[in-house]
Amino acid sequence: MRPNDRAVDQVRPIKMTRNYTAYAEGSVLVEFGNTKVLCNASVEENVPRWLKGKGKGWVTAEYGMLPRATHTRNRREAASGKQGGRTMEIQRLIARSLRAVVDLEAMGEIMVTVDCDVIQADGGTRTASISGASVAMADAFQKLVAAGKLKANPMKGHVSASVGIVEGEGRCDLEYVEDSAADTDMNVVMTEEGKMIEVQGTAEGEPFSHEELMELLALAQKGIADIIEVQKAALAE
Amino acid sequence: MRPNDRAVDQVRPIKMTRNYTAYAEGSVLVEFGNTKVLCNASVEENVPRWLKGKGKGWVTAEYGMLPRATHTRNRREAASGKQGGRTMEIQRLIARSLRAVVDLEAMGEIMVTVDCDVIQADGGTRTASISGASVAMADAFQKLVAAGKLKANPMKGHVSASVGIVEGEGRCDLEYVEDSAADTDMNVVMTEEGKMIEVQGTAEGEPFSHEELMELLALAQKGIADIIEVQKAALAE
Amino acid sequence: MRPNDRAVDQVRPIKMTRNYTAYAEGSVLVEFGNTKVLCNASVEENVPRWLKGKGKGWVTAEYGMLPRATHTRNRREAASGKQGGRTMEIQRLIARSLRAVVDLEAMGEIMVTVDCDVIQADGGTRTASISGASVAMADAFQKLVAAGKLKANPMKGHVSASVGIVEGEGRCDLEYVEDSAADTDMNVVMTEEGKMIEVQGTAEGEPFSHEELMELLALAQKGIADIIEVQKAALAE
Amino acid sequence: MRPNDRAVDQVRPIKMTRNYTAYAEGSVLVEFGNTKVLCNASVEENVPRWLKGKGKGWVTAEYGMLPRATHTRNRREAASGKQGGRTMEIQRLIARSLRAVVDLEAMGEIMVTVDCDVIQADGGTRTASISGASVAMADAFQKLVAAGKLKANPMKGHVSASVGIVEGEGRCDLEYVEDSAADTDMNVVMTEEGKMIEVQGTAEGEPFSHEELMELLALAQKGIADIIEVQKAALAE
Amino acid sequence: MRPNDRAVDQVRPIKMTRNYTAYAEGSVLVEFGNTKVLCNASVEENVPRWLKGKGKGWVTAEYGMLPRATHTRNRREAASGKQGGRTMEIQRLIARSLRAVVDLEAMGEIMVTVDCDVIQADGGTRTASISGASVAMADAFQKLVAAGKLKANPMKGHVSASVGIVEGEGRCDLEYVEDSAADTDMNVVMTEEGKMIEVQGTAEGEPFSHEELMELLALAQKGIADIIEVQKAALAE
Amino acid sequence: MRPNDRAVDQVRPIKMTRNYTAYAEGSVLVEFGNTKVLCNASVEENVPRWLKGKGKGWVTAEYGMLPRATHTRNRREAASGKQGGRTMEIQRLIARSLRAVVDLEAMGEIMVTVDCDVIQADGGTRTASISGASVAMADAFQKLVAAGKLKANPMKGHVSASVGIVEGEGRCDLEYVEDSAADTDMNVVMTEEGKMIEVQGTAEGEPFSHEELMELLALAQKGIADIIEVQKAALAE
Repeated sequence: MRPNDRAVDQVRPIKMTRNYTAYAEGSVLVEFGNTKVLCNASVEENVPRWLKGKGKGWVTAEYGMLPRATHTRNRREAASGKQGGRTMEIQRLIARSLRAVVDLEAMGEIMVTVDCDVIQADGGTRTASISGASVAMADAFQKLVAAGKLKANPMKGHVSASVGIVEGEGRCDLEYVEDSAADTDMNVVMTEEGKMIEVQGTAEGEPFSHEELMELLALAQKGIADIIEVQKAALAE
Repeated sequence: MRPNDRAVDQVRPIKMTRNYTAYAEGSVLVEFGNTKVLCNASVEENVPRWLKGKGKGWVTAEYGMLPRATHTRNRREAASGKQGGRTMEIQRLIARSLRAVVDLEAMGEIMVTVDCDVIQADGGTRTASISGASVAMADAFQKLVAAGKLKANPMKGHVSASVGIVEGEGRCDLEYVEDSAADTDMNVVMTEEGKMIEVQGTAEGEPFSHEELMELLALAQKGIADIIEVQKAALAE
Repeated sequence: MRPNDRAVDQVRPIKMTRNYTAYAEGSVLVEFGNTKVLCNASVEENVPRWLKGKGKGWVTAEYGMLPRATHTRNRREAASGKQGGRTMEIQRLIARSLRAVVDLEAMGEIMVTVDCDVIQADGGTRTASISGASVAMADAFQKLVAAGKLKANPMKGHVSASVGIVEGEGRCDLEYVEDSAADTDMNVVMTEEGKMIEVQGTAEGEPFSHEELMELLALAQKGIADIIEVQKAALAE
Repeated sequence: MRPNDRAVDQVRPIKMTRNYTAYAEGSVLVEFGNTKVLCNASVEENVPRWLKGKGKGWVTAEYGMLPRATHTRNRREAASGKQGGRTMEIQRLIARSLRAVVDLEAMGEIMVTVDCDVIQADGGTRTASISGASVAMADAFQKLVAAGKLKANPMKGHVSASVGIVEGEGRCDLEYVEDSAADTDMNVVMTEEGKMIEVQGTAEGEPFSHEELMELLALAQKGIADIIEVQKAALAE
Repeated sequence: MRPNDRAVDQVRPIKMTRNYTAYAEGSVLVEFGNTKVLCNASVEENVPRWLKGKGKGWVTAEYGMLPRATHTRNRREAASGKQGGRTMEIQRLIARSLRAVVDLEAMGEIMVTVDCDVIQADGGTRTASISGASVAMADAFQKLVAAGKLKANPMKGHVSASVGIVEGEGRCDLEYVEDSAADTDMNVVMTEEGKMIEVQGTAEGEPFSHEELMELLALAQKGIADIIEVQKAALAE
Repeated sequence: MRPNDRAVDQVRPIKMTRNYTAYAEGSVLVEFGNTKVLCNASVEENVPRWLKGKGKGWVTAEYGMLPRATHTRNRREAASGKQGGRTMEIQRLIARSLRAVVDLEAMGEIMVTVDCDVIQADGGTRTASISGASVAMADAFQKLVAAGKLKANPMKGHVSASVGIVEGEGRCDLEYVEDSAADTDMNVVMTEEGKMIEVQGTAEGEPFSHEELMELLALAQKGIADIIEVQKAALAE
């Protein structure tokens, strides 16, 4: 049995609190069970140097974990003088996922940076970050539309993510005790229509078969549909 | 008039939420009005190399600000590869203040690190950090006592801090709009008995007189008494 | 048509030169068309601190690109003082892929580090690196067996990787002109038996459908089979 | 008794050698007993980016200690790749103190950087640095006036600093053997008129009372008056 | 006897492979026996900031060693976050040597950067780097002339380098087993006419006499003549 | 004519002040005309890790320049986060020169670090550093002998350095105005007996001939003899 008697295709209780902080153009505290990530979207009327003059926007993301988001304290990256490989890999994934649902041409020369800071980590921080960041970014774009700086919201759909194989069984939205025992860990980012933006599956123990991959993708699609419901409900408030 | 009609010797509404995160030995979300700081105390049964074998403990602190804790986004220190001078100065102040109320000999070879991460900044993050860190540290020590690892809580009292001169007027617990217009900015850390641990006053515009210093210290003492009430109430829950 | 009239499921001419340098325990220059990567495996009778005393080995990898491996010169990472996010992401992928085919318990307390340095980049440097690194690592293990330090080669099979969608068409082993125009870029790492170790697909333009994913996986499996032939032939020499 | 039979309110013999080096616009070797600090003021007709076009000047400071300024060798900060927290805290204090006595508007878009490098450290390097830097800066401004680049010297007064509690006794201008045994360490920066610019008191052992603070401030005022005499004498030469 | 029965004034077999990589404006794999260095010259129509607007060009160089170019693996400089002192010293020597044979005024505002990356190290990597870099740079200039961007090749001659004292005997072009036993290690950079550009002799054991220096210079001149023959032959192909 | 009517083979007035600072085991302020370098030798009863247990000592050196040692201010290396290439090159030269005159076996497992910090730079800081460092090191060894930690001073002789070609004329001990106009800049480190430890000549404009090299070496030998007189006189005091 899974912790809390969850079904294999069931995501944890998800909560999205919009306007969590006061200054960011979009600010969402997203909770997937005990995993809590603060996603703040910042707008800058400026783009990176290599994009200047091309009439196009840019979306990027940064990821961090508070030193005591985990069971034991991790060294603060600012103190050690560099971001680790895991941090870099994750923030690149978040950024790619967000850019995949935005019409960069329609943005004009504007940049959105979404900071995803993990307050508490109980597995699935990538999934939670992408889901929360998507809502924070939607809020930021909405403000630009309201201010007359954009004609329409350039987001083409909502993104989202999640799955894994634990003890031979495909499961959706792993929490930490499952994740640390998983044979395969997989992140799937899909549009609302079920098209894929990113698929990242890693066998940590035994390699996985084609059948297992199919099972995981089906679980991911179910989980993502549930997460998108929460995103929509949050944005509708 | 001050914002929200506050009296000059009145601190903002203060809230301390204990056990805010699940893993840290002590975890407090402290709010001074719109300033919100998460203070997590971590215990390690180990001391820095230079203290090894001396039978003494150590208390240290680290401070950080989420990139969008402020009106405009600041560069993430982990990404820029170093902690700035302001960060270093503040975390040294927090650490000194905490050590001043702990009997390090009584701790044994244990180290407590308190991470103060600013979620939202509206002035007074030093004060809020020290006040919240003190409660988080108290919780961590309490757990060590409960686990039989310490005979008694080695904290000798509660610490706390605050004050400034704005438009020629001494005021307690400045918020951002006041702070940015202040002539003098002052942090005072006192014990419950009114003894001073740290006094840091800086004239940002006009130098201040002896009389003004006396006025500020009186305001600080009043504010600190109020803050200590909140700390005690939080710990009594 | 693809450059050089390649069929969609056809990999570029692949060449693996073993013992390319004289000192490394395994040294392979791998060429996938114009992409050239030097893979050197180094053996150290030691493991990282966190593995000490567990009787287990470790495999890791580092990736670099010579400044002028590409059309225009990139800044040397040693001079800029840090490895970029792309470098970190790739070397983590290579290391995970290699560890997936090694029985770490059977290695004993030995560490293998494979350095993959790109001499010339024409797309597919990840694929080429993993394929070459696998052969270099096999050579290193073979030397340890010959020296009586290992009873048997702890590699459980050969690993390998590759695919993308260009102009709506699935293609195997993209070269640079295809890669830079690809809608989807995908890296697949499989065992000889067709089990998956890593699947990393990224939509760079349009999201991809389930059907397209299936097509890409089939192309990858075909390509990987061809690459494994080359690996085996190289090791048989 | 204090070392060398000093009275509690007596500063050590102070010596200021102007024009100590040949190139700096202001160059002072300041000695407080065995503490020796070289203070060089450099003028640049340029301001930091964030001040450009505002018609205002800027004053900043950097602090360093030669590796063997102390009893045992400290690691060179340039070699370790960053300035430590203590260094940062001190150079920020020096810079704030200097800016407090300069009319930045009157400077025009000019920047003065004062480098304080400790040649030999016997306690009180902050005090000595601020005192020496003030004279070096005065010389630099004087040269700008002489060259017709400033109408008048924009310094509004002389700054200076000092005090501590050792064995329950307030003392002025602690030297190293006193400093390392002090219960409270305090730096006070005042104008010639006795107005305060910076007050930084830290209880290193026992917290200090209001009465002790008053005593320390009185000692500081006496010491500062003596130091200002030396500054004036030096500038009068 | 020397390894491979070399005469004291005999250089190892030297091979220069031009156009070794496809993208660099000049690309030479240079081999001195088992020492192999890849030298890539990159052209940029731009100069460093401090040279802008002076109508003059610049030549610079960077040096690196692949981690397993040597008998045991060295830490990757990009991973350790800085270039070591030896690397810096060598790349400055290469750059000075190259600039010494180029008419920088005649180049116009163009910059050439030569990257020398050691694939395999068996002594003499400085010599090999300078010799190979000289040919790679010649190719790059030739392309600029062919493209009509330069009127004539601004190189004034060919540069080159080499020598040492081993067991009291002067020897030309030391390989690793000789180098590690050498009493004196010397690098000489000369023009074709025998004029000196750089002389760097270091006594690693016993100091060397004036006579020994004369002997070493004579050996160097002989070796350099031989190397220049190879350079010319390579460029004539 | 040279500045101050110096003869071509004449060194500037040299002054060595021993015991310049109070704590270092050897401390010398060396002045070559207006060039002033503080050389502090520190003794540590410990050796670098790679030398441990070999019963041998080690000598190393670090070099720095105060930000305003020169006509215009240079950025502080500690603030920029790394030592520049020039600094690295020079400190490696100083260290090699010092090691060349010490019997490392006779030292036992002791390390001497000499810090050379340039207070004022008017050309020839390498020469001055090596000359001063040699005397500082001699003092440090003398103290170890006096304390019974060494049987005898392990220095085998005095080292020293200097020369250049300006306007076609060989000159000894260039000062800044000569150095910046020099065609060739050369550093020679010799023992008292005239044996060479290091020869570093660089053509900055025109290459130099064999005859010019001979002339420079003769000038260097004359200059070094004069410098050694000063070193001996200083040590005799």
